[in-house]
Amino acid sequence: MKDFIIIGHKAATAPFSLNDLPGAAGRMDILCRCVNAALFLSHGMRRDVRVYLVLKGEPAPPKLIRFEGSGVRYLSPDERSAASLIRKALEKNAQEFWVESTPGVSIRRGDFSDVLSELNRKITYLREDGEDFQGKSFEEPLFVLGDHLGMTDDEEKLIEEYEHEMASVGPLSLHADHCIVLLHNEMDRKEYLKRSTYSEPDDNSGYRAQAPA
Amino acid sequence: MKDFIIIGHKAATAPFSLNDLPGAAGRMDILCRCVNAALFLSHGMRRDVRVYLVLKGEPAPPKLIRFEGSGVRYLSPDERSAASLIRKALEKNAQEFWVESTPGVSIRRGDFSDVLSELNRKITYLREDGEDFQGKSFEEPLFVLGDHLGMTDDEEKLIEEYEHEMASVGPLSLHADHCIVLLHNEMDRKEYLKRSTYSEPDDNSGYRAQAPA
Repeated sequence: MKDFIIIGHKAATAPFSLNDLPGAAGRMDILCRCVNAALFLSHGMRRDVRVYLVLKGEPAPPKLIRFEGSGVRYLSPDERSAASLIRKALEKNAQEFWVESTPGVSIRRGDFSDVLSELNRKITYLREDGEDFQGKSFEEPLFVLGDHLGMTDDEEKLIEEYEHEMASVGPLSLHADHCIVLLHNEMDRKEYLKRSTYSEPDDNSGYRAQAPA
Repeated sequence: MKDFIIIGHKAATAPFSLNDLPGAAGRMDILCRCVNAALFLSHGMRRDVRVYLVLKGEPAPPKLIRFEGSGVRYLSPDERSAASLIRKALEKNAQEFWVESTPGVSIRRGDFSDVLSELNRKITYLREDGEDFQGKSFEEPLFVLGDHLGMTDDEEKLIEEYEHEMASVGPLSLHADHCIVLLHNEMDRKEYLKRSTYSEPDDNSGYRAQAPA
């Protein structure tokens, strides 16, 4: 399983207007693009991916929303589609445990610390001054990314309680969703090479028969 | 200059509702995400990039819209923001020459063939069965990408009238905007290496002092 946690420091924790995701919904547009980047292939969904959104904005923080690639339905690639599923989740009376709001989308009350303790494994924290991700190998990775506000000192301290490494995606500072696209590509390449070494290339995995040059 | 051309086979050619980009506006959401992927850095704009959108949907095709990273204003990363600038452009009475509708955004009547002949240089055409883009070098690149419908035979014939190459971004088939993110990262890495070899690393170019590992 590949897990991504994205922290939305201002992201709304009650139903919001779909017509103003950056403003009234507290940069919810960033989180929606991260959902897209983490889950979508050109013709299908990445079934081995889960996306956790940490919503820390008003009026009822903190809340956690989870998208599961294996079960998500009614999700299209546009921002408004992801936003609409998040809004539906926020209509639920969130508890201290996960409740499914629409297929593959769940919500609970909880903070960044709760999702880290639930997943409880090595963290790859995306930060500009991390080591270049190219060439790294990611087994059952858990990636943590900040929004436009980055990560607070307290959040960094939480990360440090776990085994962790810092990675960066290249020489320029990029939006979180762009980072996710780059991470996936690196993992896709590694998995493709592994498959072409150990198994038949045409196994309906979505990987094309042609090797990258 | 780095130029991207994206063809929107169903994209609306008259002002449209910002509340239904995938439906009534003819998958305008795809083009908006491409504008984002091509132009946005985490804290700024890629000034050396132009994005050309070929709108081929009803009611008045074909039209061309150009976003120039060097001059664009009022553009935020969310889909709706790019869509709103496209809609403003479509409110103009499009001519056979470029007219600026808002700073850095222009519109004209014209088709894919017109923008190819205007730019008139080697084309890198993104296609699943192209050669892997990693390791390629792109000088003043002109990238052409299709939308969810790919590219028609006629459009491929137009490409073949120019010097061209086919490139792919990896083993899986991805959305056009994700491809753009990957292309930029490859070019960023090359430019960073070139700069660190030939000049001072701290030259305010946006490139960080640390070398990728």
